[in-house]
Amino acid sequence: MTSYRPPEGRPTSPHLPFGDRRDAPWYGQSIISVRQFQPADLDYVFGVAHEMREMVGRVGTFDLLKGKLLANLFYEPSTRTASSFMAAMQRLGGTVIPINEVRYSSVSKGESLPDTIRTLECYADCIVLRHPQMGAAAEAAAVARKPIINAGDGVGEHPTQALLDLFTIAIELGRYSPRTGLDLSGLTITLLGDLKYGRTVHSLSRLLAPMDVRLNFVSPPTLRMPEHLMTELATGTARTTELDALDPVLADSDVLYVTRVQKERFEDVALYESLKHAFVIDRQTLTRARDTMIVMHPFPRVGEIAYDVDPDPRAAYFRQMENGMYVRMALLAMVLGKA
Amino acid sequence: MTSYRPPEGRPTSPHLPFGDRRDAPWYGQSIISVRQFQPADLDYVFGVAHEMREMVGRVGTFDLLKGKLLANLFYEPSTRTASSFMAAMQRLGGTVIPINEVRYSSVSKGESLPDTIRTLECYADCIVLRHPQMGAAAEAAAVARKPIINAGDGVGEHPTQALLDLFTIAIELGRYSPRTGLDLSGLTITLLGDLKYGRTVHSLSRLLAPMDVRLNFVSPPTLRMPEHLMTELATGTARTTELDALDPVLADSDVLYVTRVQKERFEDVALYESLKHAFVIDRQTLTRARDTMIVMHPFPRVGEIAYDVDPDPRAAYFRQMENGMYVRMALLAMVLGKA
Amino acid sequence: MTSYRPPEGRPTSPHLPFGDRRDAPWYGQSIISVRQFQPADLDYVFGVAHEMREMVGRVGTFDLLKGKLLANLFYEPSTRTASSFMAAMQRLGGTVIPINEVRYSSVSKGESLPDTIRTLECYADCIVLRHPQMGAAAEAAAVARKPIINAGDGVGEHPTQALLDLFTIAIELGRYSPRTGLDLSGLTITLLGDLKYGRTVHSLSRLLAPMDVRLNFVSPPTLRMPEHLMTELATGTARTTELDALDPVLADSDVLYVTRVQKERFEDVALYESLKHAFVIDRQTLTRARDTMIVMHPFPRVGEIAYDVDPDPRAAYFRQMENGMYVRMALLAMVLGKA
Repeated sequence: MTSYRPPEGRPTSPHLPFGDRRDAPWYGQSIISVRQFQPADLDYVFGVAHEMREMVGRVGTFDLLKGKLLANLFYEPSTRTASSFMAAMQRLGGTVIPINEVRYSSVSKGESLPDTIRTLECYADCIVLRHPQMGAAAEAAAVARKPIINAGDGVGEHPTQALLDLFTIAIELGRYSPRTGLDLSGLTITLLGDLKYGRTVHSLSRLLAPMDVRLNFVSPPTLRMPEHLMTELATGTARTTELDALDPVLADSDVLYVTRVQKERFEDVALYESLKHAFVIDRQTLTRARDTMIVMHPFPRVGEIAYDVDPDPRAAYFRQMENGMYVRMALLAMVLGKA
Repeated sequence: MTSYRPPEGRPTSPHLPFGDRRDAPWYGQSIISVRQFQPADLDYVFGVAHEMREMVGRVGTFDLLKGKLLANLFYEPSTRTASSFMAAMQRLGGTVIPINEVRYSSVSKGESLPDTIRTLECYADCIVLRHPQMGAAAEAAAVARKPIINAGDGVGEHPTQALLDLFTIAIELGRYSPRTGLDLSGLTITLLGDLKYGRTVHSLSRLLAPMDVRLNFVSPPTLRMPEHLMTELATGTARTTELDALDPVLADSDVLYVTRVQKERFEDVALYESLKHAFVIDRQTLTRARDTMIVMHPFPRVGEIAYDVDPDPRAAYFRQMENGMYVRMALLAMVLGKA
Repeated sequence: MTSYRPPEGRPTSPHLPFGDRRDAPWYGQSIISVRQFQPADLDYVFGVAHEMREMVGRVGTFDLLKGKLLANLFYEPSTRTASSFMAAMQRLGGTVIPINEVRYSSVSKGESLPDTIRTLECYADCIVLRHPQMGAAAEAAAVARKPIINAGDGVGEHPTQALLDLFTIAIELGRYSPRTGLDLSGLTITLLGDLKYGRTVHSLSRLLAPMDVRLNFVSPPTLRMPEHLMTELATGTARTTELDALDPVLADSDVLYVTRVQKERFEDVALYESLKHAFVIDRQTLTRARDTMIVMHPFPRVGEIAYDVDPDPRAAYFRQMENGMYVRMALLAMVLGKA
């Protein structure tokens, strides 16, 4: 093959997107893992997300990504994440090719993920990928000419969720401004529920590890944080504590991050049933919490947070979702060279 | 909770849409039931729908809702209704987040309808909801900050279908003009088929009850109008008759509204088979009808109207569908403050 | 019915699209079969596709079809074809109503294809149809007022695939220019794999039959070209040869068109397993091929072309997919009166 020369007149494919700021730092990059985000990167993402939030509040949508196409490729259904990315792209004036039926389609004819990715990048400018297998997003990015955004790869990562979680903590507690950047120093963040399988908790912890914060991990003994992750976190500056009860740390918490016990992770239904409501946050719980604490949840919830919490201003979970749209707008604009 | 004060710097979420005519009468309202529509409201809706029809005829699409996002949330599939709303939104320059896979998604993880609604309103400006359970649309509207449009809630209501049916009668028979409004006085409207489970017939009857019209209800004895509904209609000015044969009323009818016997409502397949073609309208039937009569059907049809009727100008059912798009354009523009 | 007169004031439906060049040759036409395309037509289609390619390379998207709606109606899933049409429409500034769930929807209530088509044309300006039954696209076009584009009808045709294949051969080998048109004279094109059921091979062969080319058909004996098709091809000017080995013709081929053995066509799994890898193209194979040969495949592939071929510049299959978008952009613009 070394002797190969393309014949005269053979065209080269227009592989690069069109009219973009190719000097922009995230231009053309894939977003696969929270490990890609150093503190300065977080300042940058949050700066853009903050702008997006302002713009949506003022005008609803605008044409920053007009003419750009996003392929929204979901190998497993996720109404929330898929809708959030679709809305993000559309509020920036771009359009979306939604692909939700992969389980019936080429894939059932045996097509590999790399082939599907290389197909879609023929049509679209960017691909959002949700896949049940850990490592799928990295595998996709390895073959892709266009940016891939990981929207969850099994028990692997869900970096946009972790970023929106962190953005929510910062915005809700007044710990981010475009001028001073992000500063969570001194905060106490309590993470509650299924910490063993909770991918969002793992990613968020990694983002918090290098900061001056206290992390309380509250779970039933069988659903504790993975040991390897606790070891990894120990190399950071965050102080960590593992508990099996919320009471000792509730009153001091600035953030209470609640997660669902995920039925789909359990083979033993009885075990799931015994654990699913190990911790339930209700109005009564909040009487013992700070007035300034916020309650977060990646949703869906199935009883971990009672509905009577919703009217409480400390219930931040719906604002958290809205922030998800702003963070995803920021990431789309960044990788498409428009931020 | 009475002592709760939001901390300094905590933002309030930009809950209201952007740059709309907030003084518009239907701005921000949900559309749940035909009971919301008084005669003056019908004049208003039809005035806007009439304009939409003119505009589409002239320019195809226009940018009245540019920048607005619609979440099209279908818990049960309905190609026709879903497509009609998508087209309505897109012809107004807005964009759509189609959500058809809820049965596989968060819902299968146990998420409640209110949580799904409160999620989607974080992203979209308006939600169209189709749900198999009666009362679902009202339940959604009760928790939503953004307008909900009921696209059918089980055996409950399907108000946009009833409005498009009425609009079709008015337009086809020359009974609406923007100047004089709606006037159906003196018309004879014959409703045929499954009147027991036919939600569209129920809603349309309610809209017609306060008018000076004659309503003939023709059905097999086992599929008669529900008694409670006949009682309700009796309080109106419309004159009603129940029959088990079409012949006595066909020649005098201005409208023949045909419905499908819905297989999915029957547990007894044999009973369904015996009833499904209790009445079949064909070319022969129409020889006994007025030249000016129109034949309507909410579709799909499965044999109640023979294909040989299609070329007859009295076959109004495809024009009826097209009117559905105009009525839905009107409703979307109204609740989003642009009509 | 001959005596029928529409009543005064009954509106006629605005059946024609809006503001289009109605004198354009393909305006309002349906695209059902490759038999519609004479050599002069190919020059025309490729001229427009060539322009589309240039424009996408320069600006990504543009507003030629702004305000037009495409209904993308897929009765069987096909991620690649559906995405390609969606991207084509969106890169032209138009919008799409994706309909992928027909198997659950009206159709499961028994609705006929003509009724579904006549419904969708009430909303959209053009319908792309993928259907498992041969003849479905022609049946749809027979009842439709709006253009239908056949995106595959079972073992019938897939004309847009054949056109993009031919366009790819022309563009890759420098055999098309807007000035001189299409000229494949003297080329040797080898088609390999399942030639019995391979609809794309059948359609492409028909397009090539009237040209001055050599066609080599290489397949296992049980998967040879259908006899009737070979008879049909014999009436053209292309010279045809059938073989059961690639070796005798590889070195002389300008194009090697590889197809998948389609599992879904076999009742006998063992037979499928014995045939599926009858021919595998890998890096080693290419050492015996010309430097200027191109390798094509309609995808998905399931092993017929090894991944180690991908980096070879002769691997044209991803460029082929990209060309699919340009050809579909051309066809959409043509039938909507904008080319």
